[in-house]
Amino acid sequence: MRCNLLTPFLKRKDNVPIYKQIVNHIINLAEKNILQPGDVLPPSRQLAQKLSISRYTVTQAYEELWAKGYLESSQGAYTKIRKRPSISRIENRNKNRIDFSSLIPDEKKDILDSLTYSNDGNVYKNKIIDFSVMNLDSSLFPVENFRKSMNEILRKFDPDILNYGNNRGFTQLREWISKRMQFYSIDVTTDEILLTNGISQGLDLLLKLFTERGDIVLTESPGYRIAISLMKFHGLNVIGIPVKEDGMDLKFLRDVLEKLIKNERTAKLIYTVPTFHNPTGITTGQRHREKLLELCYEFSLPIIEDSFEEEINYFDKMVLPIKSMDESQIVFYLGTFSKILFPGLRTGWIAGEKSCIKKLTTIKQISNLSGNPLNHAALFEYCKSGQYETFIKKANKFYSYKMSMAISFMKKYIKNPEIEWAEPSGGYIFWIKTKIDRSHEKELLNICEKNGVKVAAGSDFFIQKPKNTYIRICISSIAENEIEDGISRLSVALNEFLVKHS
Amino acid sequence: MRCNLLTPFLKRKDNVPIYKQIVNHIINLAEKNILQPGDVLPPSRQLAQKLSISRYTVTQAYEELWAKGYLESSQGAYTKIRKRPSISRIENRNKNRIDFSSLIPDEKKDILDSLTYSNDGNVYKNKIIDFSVMNLDSSLFPVENFRKSMNEILRKFDPDILNYGNNRGFTQLREWISKRMQFYSIDVTTDEILLTNGISQGLDLLLKLFTERGDIVLTESPGYRIAISLMKFHGLNVIGIPVKEDGMDLKFLRDVLEKLIKNERTAKLIYTVPTFHNPTGITTGQRHREKLLELCYEFSLPIIEDSFEEEINYFDKMVLPIKSMDESQIVFYLGTFSKILFPGLRTGWIAGEKSCIKKLTTIKQISNLSGNPLNHAALFEYCKSGQYETFIKKANKFYSYKMSMAISFMKKYIKNPEIEWAEPSGGYIFWIKTKIDRSHEKELLNICEKNGVKVAAGSDFFIQKPKNTYIRICISSIAENEIEDGISRLSVALNEFLVKHS
Repeated sequence: MRCNLLTPFLKRKDNVPIYKQIVNHIINLAEKNILQPGDVLPPSRQLAQKLSISRYTVTQAYEELWAKGYLESSQGAYTKIRKRPSISRIENRNKNRIDFSSLIPDEKKDILDSLTYSNDGNVYKNKIIDFSVMNLDSSLFPVENFRKSMNEILRKFDPDILNYGNNRGFTQLREWISKRMQFYSIDVTTDEILLTNGISQGLDLLLKLFTERGDIVLTESPGYRIAISLMKFHGLNVIGIPVKEDGMDLKFLRDVLEKLIKNERTAKLIYTVPTFHNPTGITTGQRHREKLLELCYEFSLPIIEDSFEEEINYFDKMVLPIKSMDESQIVFYLGTFSKILFPGLRTGWIAGEKSCIKKLTTIKQISNLSGNPLNHAALFEYCKSGQYETFIKKANKFYSYKMSMAISFMKKYIKNPEIEWAEPSGGYIFWIKTKIDRSHEKELLNICEKNGVKVAAGSDFFIQKPKNTYIRICISSIAENEIEDGISRLSVALNEFLVKHS
Repeated sequence: MRCNLLTPFLKRKDNVPIYKQIVNHIINLAEKNILQPGDVLPPSRQLAQKLSISRYTVTQAYEELWAKGYLESSQGAYTKIRKRPSISRIENRNKNRIDFSSLIPDEKKDILDSLTYSNDGNVYKNKIIDFSVMNLDSSLFPVENFRKSMNEILRKFDPDILNYGNNRGFTQLREWISKRMQFYSIDVTTDEILLTNGISQGLDLLLKLFTERGDIVLTESPGYRIAISLMKFHGLNVIGIPVKEDGMDLKFLRDVLEKLIKNERTAKLIYTVPTFHNPTGITTGQRHREKLLELCYEFSLPIIEDSFEEEINYFDKMVLPIKSMDESQIVFYLGTFSKILFPGLRTGWIAGEKSCIKKLTTIKQISNLSGNPLNHAALFEYCKSGQYETFIKKANKFYSYKMSMAISFMKKYIKNPEIEWAEPSGGYIFWIKTKIDRSHEKELLNICEKNGVKVAAGSDFFIQKPKNTYIRICISSIAENEIEDGISRLSVALNEFLVKHS
């Protein structure tokens, strides 16, 4: 019994409660081995008397110490210091380290290790001009108006707005989306819409529904790099369809589908970005879309139409989405608020055939339980008031101005005949092709960084790696006064690269 | 040229803009086949004069009609009505229907069809007393305080709070969680925490990292039904470890692991809910946890510790989490705010070994892009102010009162010796075993509903289906004044069921 150890430390005027002071003191003594396993603590009544505190305070301290594993106590026996496995301290961790690399399937490890792009949330704080990521310009975000919508929702709704919501997502927002899609001639009912955490979750769910490891899927090459990574991570065999000036090469696609049939195989689905294609910037024409749809009907091939920027439409005439022409409901349309309004709410949707939406909802439920009713409701509040329309007009003006600026600077600075790039009809990106072999790609990235500009490596977007070195630059999040500077730095870098390899 | 068709409809005082009236009118005429493919529209200048409106208005209308696929127009030629695939109208959809059932892998279809439980967000509105779901009581949700936190965040943060955030989730919230976990003697750094959309996403990510189709995984049987469904959906071979009075049968577990090794196979991981186990309500003791950990070290078997209700601790002493004793970092701890504060924000976390957290972050990125910085920041604002602590105290009082009430009514009404149930030491659920064969389970559910009470089917929680009929009831979301009524209805139903089968 070492009751004397317990007396001196109590500081009655401290803002740490007395019971907590006892807890801390005993932990400290136990950690330093001054109190050792088996040492008996004074009964609570006795300690309480000695310290002139209530017995309840001591009991409370002993209970917490028991809970934290420092004490043993059983009915009728003295309370003793417990022999316990020492709590893992960060500095001791390397001792018995498990080798996780042997526990993760090799194939998965390779894919994960190859994914080098990251989004650490600090893209805006670098001194380098960063053309490599496709983020929106946050200075445009309607923070104050959205705050009001959020506030309104939390004021007027019943508390269930903070509960699990409808598995398909907040009904009124789905209704709003179904109306909005009519503007693009797409007729879908509220029940044919499932809200997702953005387009990538939509694609993930569709891959989970339709595919199994080893299955064949098709997409543009070059194409959206995160989608390609996701398909590979699902263990899928991704066949790339080359992209020509007017979009995916449909003759090539037909050949692939026919060859597969000859070999008694089928592709499970095709993923395409027909509008402002990432990374090439191409928007396919109406005729191309009709042909693609006919081809997919012929081969019963579901289409995933990623329309991430349908609403960002500032230079050219609008083309109808593939989904709007889809009588057989073979198209799954992926939409999102992320690239229009702001991405922080992680709200997108899948629109498609009802029985499939039901199954996708179940898959979402077992891996995510429910949507986010608060965010959905606030978004609905914002949209229904007409602010969404107003914002889009403003955003289109804002980005069309930025993009015109970028195009004029591209024309001014990037005119070396060894460099090819096409003027995009919308979106935020330029796809730049050099005549230099791809083996030098990394070198070009380094030269760019040395010159104070960061670009995205072209090869990340390809399925079968290309011959040449490509890069993608995105201007959406670059401040107006940095666009010229960034493009002129890029021009210096490209010239340096070309000179080196000519 | 049928220009006359266009004149009569303009309503200048209508709140539909003139250009839109033109659009609507022409669409209407085209849909009714009054305007047919090839029909020529008047040049914009001419129509503008005729209608006494600006030429720009007409151009605007024609552009929208073109965009919607109703017009053909090319430089220098007349604008004509376009031959187009008719837009899919919902009523026509059944014509060329694709047979999706042939496109979805059979095994997946079976699993999805077997998942009958749903969460339609209307659980509170039924007249029946619904003990079948495990939702919190929304009357307790701190809506007003959370509104203030959300408001504060949207007022004071820069607009990037609405941008993609750090892939691991909002840093300050991860810091707060790492400190909070120290209260449970778990030492993890901020970098060892990945925020997820709740526990189910955490489990989904871990399954994606460690397992492949056909792999063996282990868990309690009976166990958390959504986790079991998810593991099956991943194509895993789920082996159930029986649950005894003090938790998972560790002797059985050792036998399984040894047998697997003899057959040159290994289990990839074990998923366990050691505290307030769902559906049995059991909390395992310190010694049981130490033994489980030792066993898993011996067999290099990663543990997923689902601690969904760690903080809901109102009757008994606290037991240390398995993670707190884990020197080798073999334990992945899944935590959540959903079952404590409120579920609507979908915020949970994985705490575990750093290199694995990095890989899990990449998997989350390719399937979800980023976290939800706004929600995370608002949650952090709420938590750091001390409101979280205050709320937990309040919630513990609230639920301990409800649960004491439920226990006393269970004792009062459910005393037929043919029925077994144990008094839980926390949580919100009762696990009820009958002596009747499981083939009659559905009948018991029907008798319950007939008597105005809904319960969860026991067999959903088992991996190898049990002999007897079990049910689970959950009292957390039931209003205080309905608990007695509900349990007495349940008692009537159980007696009716027993009489029928005795």
